[in-house]
Amino acid sequence: MRPGQHRVLQGHPWVFHGEFRDLPADLAPGEIVEVADARGRLVGSGYLNPESSILVRILTRGERHPDPEWATAKLHAAITRRRQEMPDVTDLRLVHAEADGLPGFVLERMGGYAIVSPDTLGAQEVLLPWLLDEIRALGPEGVVLRAVSPSRQHEGLGLELRMLAGDPPRGPVEVHEEGVTYLVDLLSGQKTGHYFDQRRNRSRVGALSSGRRVLDVFSYTGGFALHAARGGASSVTAIDSSSDAVTALRRNAERNGVVIEAREENAFDALRTLSQARERFDLVVLDPPPFARGRAHLPAALRAYKEINLRAMRLLPPGGILSTASCSHAVSVEDFLGAVRAAAADAGFTGRVLGIHGADSDHPVRIEIPETDYLHCIELVKE
Amino acid sequence: MRPGQHRVLQGHPWVFHGEFRDLPADLAPGEIVEVADARGRLVGSGYLNPESSILVRILTRGERHPDPEWATAKLHAAITRRRQEMPDVTDLRLVHAEADGLPGFVLERMGGYAIVSPDTLGAQEVLLPWLLDEIRALGPEGVVLRAVSPSRQHEGLGLELRMLAGDPPRGPVEVHEEGVTYLVDLLSGQKTGHYFDQRRNRSRVGALSSGRRVLDVFSYTGGFALHAARGGASSVTAIDSSSDAVTALRRNAERNGVVIEAREENAFDALRTLSQARERFDLVVLDPPPFARGRAHLPAALRAYKEINLRAMRLLPPGGILSTASCSHAVSVEDFLGAVRAAAADAGFTGRVLGIHGADSDHPVRIEIPETDYLHCIELVKE
Repeated sequence: MRPGQHRVLQGHPWVFHGEFRDLPADLAPGEIVEVADARGRLVGSGYLNPESSILVRILTRGERHPDPEWATAKLHAAITRRRQEMPDVTDLRLVHAEADGLPGFVLERMGGYAIVSPDTLGAQEVLLPWLLDEIRALGPEGVVLRAVSPSRQHEGLGLELRMLAGDPPRGPVEVHEEGVTYLVDLLSGQKTGHYFDQRRNRSRVGALSSGRRVLDVFSYTGGFALHAARGGASSVTAIDSSSDAVTALRRNAERNGVVIEAREENAFDALRTLSQARERFDLVVLDPPPFARGRAHLPAALRAYKEINLRAMRLLPPGGILSTASCSHAVSVEDFLGAVRAAAADAGFTGRVLGIHGADSDHPVRIEIPETDYLHCIELVKE
Repeated sequence: MRPGQHRVLQGHPWVFHGEFRDLPADLAPGEIVEVADARGRLVGSGYLNPESSILVRILTRGERHPDPEWATAKLHAAITRRRQEMPDVTDLRLVHAEADGLPGFVLERMGGYAIVSPDTLGAQEVLLPWLLDEIRALGPEGVVLRAVSPSRQHEGLGLELRMLAGDPPRGPVEVHEEGVTYLVDLLSGQKTGHYFDQRRNRSRVGALSSGRRVLDVFSYTGGFALHAARGGASSVTAIDSSSDAVTALRRNAERNGVVIEAREENAFDALRTLSQARERFDLVVLDPPPFARGRAHLPAALRAYKEINLRAMRLLPPGGILSTASCSHAVSVEDFLGAVRAAAADAGFTGRVLGIHGADSDHPVRIEIPETDYLHCIELVKE
């Protein structure tokens, strides 16, 4: 590498193109390479993708060479920790990529199936072959390759969706979460999967919902709305702009035997309309998709966060609760808190912060990888 | 007020000297005054102190004039919320000043006594007379005026320590917290009081302590150390530079029937010595006093936070836990996280963030008063 402060020397797994000095001419995609510092001392080994701005993702440090045995140990360490810390959770993320020491490699369990989502070329072409037999040995009904993340384009990868082992499930599988069941089509290309990271925040909303009129904005397939309904909300309204999501939400509501009014509508428009009609909700959830895909989008993202939070605050009576989230990697907790404070200032909203929470612990945060601290959920009560 | 963006228009209670345009010549300390915006429209009413850079602290908005009835309603709202949310907690902060709508006014309950700590002239000369009978009606053994905060000097106030009602306690009172008992001398001028804000974070350390060698740095009277010992730590070492604190800690350890090695030593020196001696601890607590008393001290404070965290990280074996706090109002959660990340980078420390927590809910955080979000506790495990 070039001389200088490199995050990789401090435990971060990413080495960018520009950080290298002496690059060999022939860089083979998926190759395992050794990385040395400016003085030629070995830093560690990682997989390489010339298509990606992150040229190398470090797997092992020092002399230890990455191999299937190493990857298997990482896999089992990740699974063992979750089994200890979340013994009652059946459906969850078992491996969270960089945060579990397996860059780009995501493994989840849903309804008895193992779902593998490689976000990088190295995860797909190096780690997956090393780990597939181990994953089959976990005894799932089948192993699904669900490689549908938009970030794969930065790796020169397309989308893939197929069985790696076992027969495809007949119809949707059931994902269970604290008394709520989500139906998930594992082999559907529609964006109607399931995100585990908000599990704990959904649970909190469920516990706060009793007797409240609940509005779930950016509802997706009903992650929060279903918990609100099960938690005894007096009414639940869900808004999402995707007809696939609204259809999936209605199916989920039926499966759970609850009533949710689901509207297919742009969230910004819906918030404006509800506000102009002076509608009131006692609990509003804002769980938008990431507004900032990188630092360049930060100012626009913060304006968007301020906008939706301001509109949501106007829907709340005194005692009303707002549960508002950001899952933009480029938005820090302080950035997001600043946007929510600015919204409060403009809306004349005063109140108490009930809590600021991150993702559930199957999405660990690592101190040396700030990117793993991507989810921030702020709960407020209007006073 | 002068034209412009004033935080007070957005719900914040503070109006600074420089924000006023037309100030009457004769400003009487403790007077209740009305504040108008640049167009002469009434904003609200507050108490005044010409000695303080915060000239007025707003109590009520609009036409409502502050009076004993208003203050009594605020007092009971604060107490009622805590009774609902923390029904099992007997010793706690009942009123947290601005965060409970009673600027500068702090009320706590310890061992059956009510402790009043007015941090401002208005809290002492306006709010206290309005509320004293109500506080007596709560039925405490006695009411203690414990006005010992250093911030009182900014209000032109000295220290006061005396009974306002009832007889002084004979000896220390007992403060109970989840199986731990703290002995507190309510009428002692020594800095050996008790801080409730870390209650939840102490409880977490207790739950993590079983079988671990625990080091509590800036231990004060043993807030964390006692919970570690009760939680089954294999050993507990506590370090504080104050002999009063160490004496109080030893008395607390005896009262709780636990063994704690208490050392009177400068924390920075002690961390260096332990590190050089290659000592190891499985759980280290850093709970220093505020390093930054204002924004001007921020860079120095962040260097100090980085320094102690770096040294603490070096004491941890793999699997070791660091519970590290900042209670500096000028240090945001992002600032503090940045200092801890920088320490990790320099120490070669990698690991998981178990959680980022604030103060317990008897120290509420208000979205319109960023200063109320002052306590940040980060828990890390070395991996």
